[in-house]
Amino acid sequence: MQITILGGGGFLGRKLAQRLAAEGTLGGAPITGLTLFDLAAPPAPEGARFPVRCLGGDVADPAQVAAAIPAGTAVVVHLAAVVSAQAEADFDLGLRVNVHGTLAVLQACRALPRPPRVVFTSSVASFAGGQGALLADDARQLPTNSYGAEKAIGELLLQDASRRGFLDAVNLRLPTVIIRPGRPNRAASSFVSAILREPLLGLPAELPVPEDFAVWICSPRRAVAWFLHAMTMDTAPLGLDRGINPPGRSVAVGEMLAALEGVAGPAARALVRPVPDPAVEAIVGGWPASFTAERARRPLGFSEQEGMEAIIEAFIADDLAATRAERGL
Amino acid sequence: MQITILGGGGFLGRKLAQRLAAEGTLGGAPITGLTLFDLAAPPAPEGARFPVRCLGGDVADPAQVAAAIPAGTAVVVHLAAVVSAQAEADFDLGLRVNVHGTLAVLQACRALPRPPRVVFTSSVASFAGGQGALLADDARQLPTNSYGAEKAIGELLLQDASRRGFLDAVNLRLPTVIIRPGRPNRAASSFVSAILREPLLGLPAELPVPEDFAVWICSPRRAVAWFLHAMTMDTAPLGLDRGINPPGRSVAVGEMLAALEGVAGPAARALVRPVPDPAVEAIVGGWPASFTAERARRPLGFSEQEGMEAIIEAFIADDLAATRAERGL
Repeated sequence: MQITILGGGGFLGRKLAQRLAAEGTLGGAPITGLTLFDLAAPPAPEGARFPVRCLGGDVADPAQVAAAIPAGTAVVVHLAAVVSAQAEADFDLGLRVNVHGTLAVLQACRALPRPPRVVFTSSVASFAGGQGALLADDARQLPTNSYGAEKAIGELLLQDASRRGFLDAVNLRLPTVIIRPGRPNRAASSFVSAILREPLLGLPAELPVPEDFAVWICSPRRAVAWFLHAMTMDTAPLGLDRGINPPGRSVAVGEMLAALEGVAGPAARALVRPVPDPAVEAIVGGWPASFTAERARRPLGFSEQEGMEAIIEAFIADDLAATRAERGL
Repeated sequence: MQITILGGGGFLGRKLAQRLAAEGTLGGAPITGLTLFDLAAPPAPEGARFPVRCLGGDVADPAQVAAAIPAGTAVVVHLAAVVSAQAEADFDLGLRVNVHGTLAVLQACRALPRPPRVVFTSSVASFAGGQGALLADDARQLPTNSYGAEKAIGELLLQDASRRGFLDAVNLRLPTVIIRPGRPNRAASSFVSAILREPLLGLPAELPVPEDFAVWICSPRRAVAWFLHAMTMDTAPLGLDRGINPPGRSVAVGEMLAALEGVAGPAARALVRPVPDPAVEAIVGGWPASFTAERARRPLGFSEQEGMEAIIEAFIADDLAATRAERGL
């Protein structure tokens, strides 16, 4: 089985590649090749017993994307994106990467002799509703930001391409993924990771929203588990509707900080100070804080999100040392 | 006030242009110029007391679209599209005209010194639901065909561009417009007009669906009235949500034929014979047959659709002679 990860240099792409290298198989079939594609050629995962191609390129360039999805590709995981605050700051860049990029992926998949599975990371940011919302599986996507609009457009493109038999898409609307390793990024939701990661590194962090502000979250481990499930699941029960709200958790920022204190002590908690940021709240405040996620759970078998303490402990186990090293701490 | 109609050579574009020429004003302001743009340069409407530019070009070519939307344009009506059966038959053409075309319109409007009103014709075909459905204003768009997917994408693009202040969009999800003059076209819904128009011309027509098959319809007169309202209405009450389901009517095909008999006699009705067409039913059968259209009616002031007899009588008054002449009958 040949696999391509677009955005394979991002933190979820690298974790997924590492997991595939460790497993060596997917859905019971041996992995015969892996292509990782990102702006800069991503690092190959350690210990892979199959060939790994690492390509640097532009996801909006159809020829480069086609080269990353060779004949025989069975699964494409499309994680390449310009994130929320950046897409808001640079409209043309967001359109180019998030819309034209997904169009290039569609056409590259369509050109294959056999339609591949495509796992597309859409986002909670494609919905409106805000703090009070509890969104059902058939909720309308009414994006409050360009990133969310571009993700909803990507879903429509890949859903229609699935109906036509060009490819076989699973559009996963990922919650805010915490705790991101490394440095703050340009996602408006970057603070949700920062208020946990920075104190675990012994560094201060700013909280731009009130403590009762709730966020629909998942962990990197859970996201990777969902990718693996989406890469091999039976898509027949999806029918026309390729959009899936996986079972994340709705957690108030105050609960996150309480879990931080529980795991790392009051000194860690004390490193977080409130610094209201209306620009950040304007973006993330539009995202719904809760989903029913019924379809993903019962008929489709997506696994449950673990609790906040487990998320913090997993970050310490999986990412804290590498983050320290990366940042020279 | 300068106005541009993209798709100005189509039957609704020509009717709108003719109406603007007859009125000379829009929303109380004098019309100072009209640009009509289509694949072939459309005919200028008769009797216009303002300059009319008639341009032929490709709506997916950003430079040609920009030329059709000069500085000072206050209102753009974007009717240019590849219709449903054609977009289903030729995926790349549908994508090019319906998605890249709307992107070109967005960028041309964004380049203007003042953000123009954009009236975009989206479609009932962007929804799923079928015969049993009664769709509320916040219903999700889950298209069952490429045309509908492309229209939903166009809505998302123009809605986000409105939020950003690049333009000021009203996305009208038009019902199936009957009675279309001229000849059958490549819309899957073409038969809904044909079963009325052809008998009025003394010609036979085929009915591809059962008589109890219901269609969400509007008349050309009503569509033009809605365009005029959308071109000048206050968009502040729309907020983020630029999509409008105007108040069409849900009419069973059998009711249409009864109205035909009422207006034109049993001989006209007898010219329609059932010839089931599963390919047509597969497309139009996915479109919902009814909408609540509450928002369009009460807060927004879109006018009500008249009944079937009035629709047939209006066709006879407005379009029958021209259709006869066009087809050499």
